[in-house]
Amino acid sequence: MDDKINLAEKLERLDRPYVPGIVGFLNDYKIIVVKVRGEFTWHKHDETDDFFLVLRGRMTIQLRDRNVELEAGELFVVPRGVEHCPKADEEAEVLLIEPRDTINTGDAGGDLTAEPVEL
Amino acid sequence: MDDKINLAEKLERLDRPYVPGIVGFLNDYKIIVVKVRGEFTWHKHDETDDFFLVLRGRMTIQLRDRNVELEAGELFVVPRGVEHCPKADEEAEVLLIEPRDTINTGDAGGDLTAEPVEL
Repeated sequence: MDDKINLAEKLERLDRPYVPGIVGFLNDYKIIVVKVRGEFTWHKHDETDDFFLVLRGRMTIQLRDRNVELEAGELFVVPRGVEHCPKADEEAEVLLIEPRDTINTGDAGGDLTAEPVEL
Repeated sequence: MDDKINLAEKLERLDRPYVPGIVGFLNDYKIIVVKVRGEFTWHKHDETDDFFLVLRGRMTIQLRDRNVELEAGELFVVPRGVEHCPKADEEAEVLLIEPRDTINTGDAGGDLTAEPVEL
């Protein structure tokens, strides 16, 4: 992983939504691309903020008191401990950056819990 | 900074290249946008990797043994301790993510050393 990373090429290798694909590392953080389609699961991360940058398409980060609508070129950081649930009506491509030990479903667990794949 | 961040809007507020503009935080990291034009300065960060994601345009990260050419949608992480020097013939817009105490010119200092502005 010591060369440049083309995010669109990496995303082509993902064939299912919400499977996190690791494209690199920044210190003790993992750099992830993911396809967002449909609704994820309500969860929170008590130990870390949660970084979303939309690369293509649009998505919604549902919070308990409001929705954050993101288009390509927009980012949002969910503060640690705040419940949220990502969703997208049509597929969106998203960049995530999070500590290496972060679990995608946070405290919620369930069927959508997935180990990241290395792309 | 608890709302979404439109990176293009933030970049419009920067009128000079190589001035780091803080748009948010992720734990103890700062999220920065910067305009890259001309040549920066050779430097390294002994304590941290250095994350570059090109949002618009193209840039070169010169390393001592090769050049890494980045276009929009491509990212590169310079490993800690590795000397590098960013440059761009035409203006590029770039996202940086780095620990809060990182100095833009690393070990090199000099006239290009700049405190980030909050955008």
